Amino acid sequence: METPSTDKHEQKRITARSEDYSEWYQDVIAAADLAEHSPVKGCMIIKPNGYALWERIQEVLDKAFKKEGVRNAYFPLFIPERLLKREEAHVEGFAPEVAVVTHAGGKKLDEPLVVRPTSETIMYETFSKWVQSYRDLPLLINQWANVVRWELRTRLFLRTTEFLWQEGHTVHATNEEADARARRMLDIYRDLAENYLAIPVIPGIKSESEKFAGADKTYTIEAMMQDGKALQAGTSHNLGQNFAKAFNVSFLDENGERQFGWQTSWGLSTRIIGGLIMTHSDDTGLVLSPRIAPIQAVITTIGRSDEKRAVDKAAEQLAHTLDEAGIRVHVDASDARPGDKFYEWEKKGVPLRLELGPKDIASGSSVLVRRDTGAKETVAASALAKRVQQLLDEIHKSLYDRALAYQKEKTKNVDSWDEFVREIEAGNFVLAHWSGDAEVEKKIKEETGATIRCIPFDQVREDGKCVYSGEASTGRVIFARAY
Amino acid sequence: METPSTDKHEQKRITARSEDYSEWYQDVIAAADLAEHSPVKGCMIIKPNGYALWERIQEVLDKAFKKEGVRNAYFPLFIPERLLKREEAHVEGFAPEVAVVTHAGGKKLDEPLVVRPTSETIMYETFSKWVQSYRDLPLLINQWANVVRWELRTRLFLRTTEFLWQEGHTVHATNEEADARARRMLDIYRDLAENYLAIPVIPGIKSESEKFAGADKTYTIEAMMQDGKALQAGTSHNLGQNFAKAFNVSFLDENGERQFGWQTSWGLSTRIIGGLIMTHSDDTGLVLSPRIAPIQAVITTIGRSDEKRAVDKAAEQLAHTLDEAGIRVHVDASDARPGDKFYEWEKKGVPLRLELGPKDIASGSSVLVRRDTGAKETVAASALAKRVQQLLDEIHKSLYDRALAYQKEKTKNVDSWDEFVREIEAGNFVLAHWSGDAEVEKKIKEETGATIRCIPFDQVREDGKCVYSGEASTGRVIFARAY
Repeated sequence: METPSTDKHEQKRITARSEDYSEWYQDVIAAADLAEHSPVKGCMIIKPNGYALWERIQEVLDKAFKKEGVRNAYFPLFIPERLLKREEAHVEGFAPEVAVVTHAGGKKLDEPLVVRPTSETIMYETFSKWVQSYRDLPLLINQWANVVRWELRTRLFLRTTEFLWQEGHTVHATNEEADARARRMLDIYRDLAENYLAIPVIPGIKSESEKFAGADKTYTIEAMMQDGKALQAGTSHNLGQNFAKAFNVSFLDENGERQFGWQTSWGLSTRIIGGLIMTHSDDTGLVLSPRIAPIQAVITTIGRSDEKRAVDKAAEQLAHTLDEAGIRVHVDASDARPGDKFYEWEKKGVPLRLELGPKDIASGSSVLVRRDTGAKETVAASALAKRVQQLLDEIHKSLYDRALAYQKEKTKNVDSWDEFVREIEAGNFVLAHWSGDAEVEKKIKEETGATIRCIPFDQVREDGKCVYSGEASTGRVIFARAY
Repeated sequence: METPSTDKHEQKRITARSEDYSEWYQDVIAAADLAEHSPVKGCMIIKPNGYALWERIQEVLDKAFKKEGVRNAYFPLFIPERLLKREEAHVEGFAPEVAVVTHAGGKKLDEPLVVRPTSETIMYETFSKWVQSYRDLPLLINQWANVVRWELRTRLFLRTTEFLWQEGHTVHATNEEADARARRMLDIYRDLAENYLAIPVIPGIKSESEKFAGADKTYTIEAMMQDGKALQAGTSHNLGQNFAKAFNVSFLDENGERQFGWQTSWGLSTRIIGGLIMTHSDDTGLVLSPRIAPIQAVITTIGRSDEKRAVDKAAEQLAHTLDEAGIRVHVDASDARPGDKFYEWEKKGVPLRLELGPKDIASGSSVLVRRDTGAKETVAASALAKRVQQLLDEIHKSLYDRALAYQKEKTKNVDSWDEFVREIEAGNFVLAHWSGDAEVEKKIKEETGATIRCIPFDQVREDGKCVYSGEASTGRVIFARAY
C-alpha cells in the first residue's frame, strides 16, 4: 500500500534550517508523512509513518518496564473534579489547562468530569484500597494512554492538546526506595534517548519552580535541538508523601504501625518524536536513528522494463537475507524514476539505501548509501548483511557523537550577566552560577526567556556567585530557552 | 511483586453459577483480580491481570492486521459536533450516548467537542484529503484507542462507559473489494475467538434494525455464554458510500472520472474479555484458554523449610526449560500452604499447574494438574516440556469442543410461537423463520427480549413461515437474549 500523502500534486521544497527553523520542522514532518493538524484545534493526527516511531518507542520502553517488574493497567479517562482538587499544588498546576465534560447521555452531569491531564489523582484514590500492608509494596504500575492539556500555542509532536504517553506510578515503603525508583526510571528514559534515539541528554534535577505540581523532586532528561533550544524529553518525580497523605495511600508496616506510602510517577510522551526529528534531520528531510527506524534499510530497484523483473526478484531475495539477519528492510520496486525513488526514502529518513540494478546483479554486489552522510560504497552480495549491520551501528554512533559534539560546543560557561544575555540570545545552553533563589530565576526568565533546564546530576561543586544577583552559589546550573 | 488485591482480609467465596449467574461473573473477576469499578460512574479499572489479557489480544490482532497491510495511526479523541452530525443515520445512532466537552482551558468552547464514541467522522474528514487518486487505494488504517459511550447500566468488561478497542477503517475503489475486506476482517476476529480464545462463534450478518448506524451491512460474530445469552464479540461493517458521500471521500479512477470511495470499519473491544470469562470459567473461578493465558503454566513449590531452597532452585531450572520451549511459565515459590497456593492459581485461571516438592525431585518427575478438568498426571522431568505443550493444545481443543457442544445443545430449531417463547425463556438460542419484517422483529423483542443475533453465513435455504407473523420466509435466523 502507498503511504497516504496530503500533497499529491507537487512536492513542496523543504525550507532550509538557516532560513526558518520552525518552517523547516513543519516541512520535514510533512515530507516524511509523520503527522498533520486535525480539524480539532491543537490536536494532531499521527499518520502511519509517525505512529510506527511511537510503536518502536513503546516496544523498547515496555520491555524495559516489564524487566523492572512494572505491570500495565488501565484507569479511566475521566476524573471527577473533587478528586483533582484533593492535592493542593497539583490542582493549582493543572486546573487552568483541563478540558471538562459537563454533559453526557443527553443530560447535564451532577459533577463535571475532567479529561485526565495526568492520572495521579484517579489512580491514587484506588491505590489507597490496593495498598494495605507492607506486603503489597512496592506497587509498580504503568499505563499507556492519551492525556489532554489545553494548550494555546501548539506544534506537532512538541506541544499538542492531546498527546499519547506512558505514565508510571509506584508506591514504596521508604523515601529512599521511592527516590531510587524515580532515578532508575529516568535512567531508562536516558537509555532510550541515547542508545535507541541517538539523542544525547543531560540528566538532572529541576529547580523548585520548574518541578511537577505535587512532587518533592522532579528528575529530567534535557536535550539540545539544532536551534540550541532545550527539549525536556522525559521526567520522573519523587512525590514524597504528598499524594499519599491527600489520598490516604497507607500501609501497616512490619511492626503493625500505619505509615503513609512514598510515591513516584514518571512519563514520556510522543513529544520525544519531535526531539528525534529536530536532533538529526537536515535540509533534505528526516534523518532517523537506525535502532528506532521502522525501516532500517530500503532496497530500491532500477532497470529497463525487460530487466526489471529479474532485479525485483533479486531484491526480494536480498530482503529475505537481511530480514533473517534481523534487519528491518523494505523493497521499493516501483517504476518511478531512480532520482525520485532515492529522494522518497531520503526525506523519510531511512538510514540506509541499497541500490540494485542489472549491473549490480551482474557484478554480484550492491551500492550502499548512508542517509546521514550520503557516503556510498559498493559491497559484495555475500558480505551485505554483515556490512549493513555494521553500518547501522556506525550511523547510530555517528549521529549520537555529532549531536553530542554540537551540544558541548553550544554549552557555554558564563560568569557575567552581559555574557549570559549574549549567549542565550545566540541560542546556546548556558552553564552559570545560581544561588537557588526562585525570585532571581523568575526575573532571568522574564528578561531573557531562559529557564533553568536542570541542575545536572554531574554538577561539579564549585564556589561562585549568582550570575544575576551575585549571591553565593556552590555550582553551575543549565539555563536555556526551551520548547 | 504481589498482584494488588482489593480484599486482603478474607477470600470471598465465589457464588455458584446456578445460584446467581451475574454474581458469579462479578466474583470470578474479583477473585482473579482482573478489573474493578472506578470512582467514575460506569468506568472500570482494568487491573494488571486483566490488562495482560488485553495485551495478548492486541498482540494477536495487531500481527494479523499488519500481515494484511493495515497500518496503525492515531486520530484525535475529540470530534467537533458539526462533524458527528454530517452522516444522518450515524448521528441518530450515537448522539444520545455521547459525552460532551463544553469547557476547556478555563473558558467555554465556541463549539462543543464530543468524546469519540467511534471515529468514522473524524477520520473520514481527513481521508477526504488523503484519498485523491485510485493509486491511493486501498487505504487501510487501524487505531488502538479508548472510546466513550454513555451507558446507564454497566457491567465490567461487557458494557462500560469507556472501553478500549481497535477500530479499523478502510477505503476501496469498488463495493466488491470493500465487502471482501469487511468479511476478511470478520474472519480475523473469528480466528482470534476460536483459535486463541477457544470461543466458538457464529459468523453472520445483522438485520437492518441491528446494523451499525451508517452502515450498509454489518457482519458479526456471536458467541453463546453459559447462561445461554448471546455476546456480540466483534463486528465489521460495509459502509457502502454513505460516509464517503457525507465527507467527500472521492478519487479519480483510471479513466480520470471522480468516484466516491467504498468504505469499511471494524472493531473489537475489551468486551471480548467478558466473553472469554463467561465461556470457560467455573464455580472455582476463572478458566483461561491456553493460547491467550498470560501465564500458561505455574510451577508451585512445596517442602519443609530445610528442603525448600533446593526445590525452588529446581523449579527455576524447570521454568527455564519451559521458557526455552516457548511456554509462558511462572514460579510460585511462596511459603503459603499448598492448598492456598493451588487455589490462588486456580481462581486466576492458569491452564496448567506443575507441583514440585522434594519427592518429585527425588523421583525426577512432576505432577501436572489441568485447570479445566482437574485431571492429574505424573510426568518425567525429561518429557515435561513436550507434555506441557501437548496438554496446552489439548486444553484448548477441549475448551473449544465443550463450548461448541454446549452451543449446539442449546440452539433449538423452533417452528411455533409457543415453542419460541418457551425456548427463549429457557435461555436458549432459537433458530426460527423470519420474513425480514422489521416491525415483527421489534414486536418479538418487546414480547420476549430476544433479538436477531444474526442471519448466519451458513444459513440453509429452506422455505418456511415466520414464527411470529406466518409470512413466507426462505431461511432461519438466530434469536436470543443478549448482553
